[in-house]
Amino acid sequence: MLSEQAMIEALGRIAVGIGDDAALLEGGLVAAADMLVEGTHFDRRRLDARGIGARAAAANLSDMAAMGADPICLLASLGLPEGYGEVAELAAGLSAHGVPLVGGDLVRSPALVVSVAVLGRAERPALRSGGRPGDRLVVTGELGGQAASGYTAPVRPRLAEGRALAAVATAMIDISDGIARDAERLAAASGCRSVVELGRLPVASGATLEQAAAGGEDFELLAALPEGAGAPVPVTEVGRLSEGQGVLLLDPAGSPVELQGWDQFA
Amino acid sequence: MLSEQAMIEALGRIAVGIGDDAALLEGGLVAAADMLVEGTHFDRRRLDARGIGARAAAANLSDMAAMGADPICLLASLGLPEGYGEVAELAAGLSAHGVPLVGGDLVRSPALVVSVAVLGRAERPALRSGGRPGDRLVVTGELGGQAASGYTAPVRPRLAEGRALAAVATAMIDISDGIARDAERLAAASGCRSVVELGRLPVASGATLEQAAAGGEDFELLAALPEGAGAPVPVTEVGRLSEGQGVLLLDPAGSPVELQGWDQFA
Repeated sequence: MLSEQAMIEALGRIAVGIGDDAALLEGGLVAAADMLVEGTHFDRRRLDARGIGARAAAANLSDMAAMGADPICLLASLGLPEGYGEVAELAAGLSAHGVPLVGGDLVRSPALVVSVAVLGRAERPALRSGGRPGDRLVVTGELGGQAASGYTAPVRPRLAEGRALAAVATAMIDISDGIARDAERLAAASGCRSVVELGRLPVASGATLEQAAAGGEDFELLAALPEGAGAPVPVTEVGRLSEGQGVLLLDPAGSPVELQGWDQFA
Repeated sequence: MLSEQAMIEALGRIAVGIGDDAALLEGGLVAAADMLVEGTHFDRRRLDARGIGARAAAANLSDMAAMGADPICLLASLGLPEGYGEVAELAAGLSAHGVPLVGGDLVRSPALVVSVAVLGRAERPALRSGGRPGDRLVVTGELGGQAASGYTAPVRPRLAEGRALAAVATAMIDISDGIARDAERLAAASGCRSVVELGRLPVASGATLEQAAAGGEDFELLAALPEGAGAPVPVTEVGRLSEGQGVLLLDPAGSPVELQGWDQFA
């Protein structure tokens, strides 16, 4: 079985833009897509239709936030099991973040599928790839809250924070698969190593340190700030970029530790 | 069970743009999305991965053609069954029409799902809603070939024809669910009746008249041309718009007939 990374690379061989949070197009346009599938990403017994729609939209809007982009609109294609009757509630959730839903498709599917694409515009897009050794790593908000809630807590995409951070960050990514994994992605794109001090993570109330480090779908932002640059919004400093590669996780005593990020294909 | 139309209306209540082939955005941007699901839209035993990808892209590009738009890029989210190993072939098919695939998502799914969104630009977008009584109805290419092939024949989206027709057409739609159904949609959007003479349909080789009238996925274009306007590309005149509503199908003797369009939710 291919890992998610290997699949992204298989797609990426013929694609431009895959590998960052969103594709950067002409004229400052940015576009991204995310798909949620019942059984893989949500359980209809635990999350209602409005919550599923809101979550699907949030995942996409978080990609815009990570680029420092302003979303323009969403498109949503819905795969619906026979007898499914909550399209209006799903659509209400998709629109819950105030970004207009302008089109889509409705088809029959064995499981509920919510596939969303987002279009936005960025004056100064932040990529994953601009980080340099010495940059400070900072995160917005708190981590692990989604894992602690069983992935049912409301998600608020960090759009305003993303725009503000994009003005100063050398690199940025949204934390969708746990900071351990996403710090590694930012490092790989930037040709650096991410050093993350677990003792400094802003652990959400009720979450464990492991959930804060490796739980998915928090949709907070991880940004690299150059030496001397202040953060324009409240953030927590959690580490730095250094020479090297990969991610180095340090426990509160400063010793390296191993943690697995969340990979749905693993 | 809701009909597809009722579902589109449920979505449309809170959406701008749903109901035309693509949503018209600021600055002449147009965007659309289509989703293909294994078992509903294709059978992996009859269509290979490259063919599935090409078909999914074509469905989206046909929406651009129907607006007279130039596609800029595609985004593709893929739902992959466990053990699926043909992502590169799918991606090659998605790129087969020459429009760059710039991003997307890869997730685990019980059935293969190929969800595509397209972004384009139209200088003079053609909508479904501009038709007037007296306009001639014309179609590109031939109809029924997809139904006759079991939906495995290659699809070529009519992009150049769409751009050319958009310069003169009062209304346009792509024929995805059979001309009987799509002529009714164009009529509804334009506040007219579509009168289609079945004896004039350009029936594809090997197809029946019923397949030409009600078979899906031909992805040809149906345009309304004002009195006196010549068609800039080869087309077949198949009827006209009149006062009234709905679609009136006439048999070769000029008598009204009933035909059911293809509705996957019926």
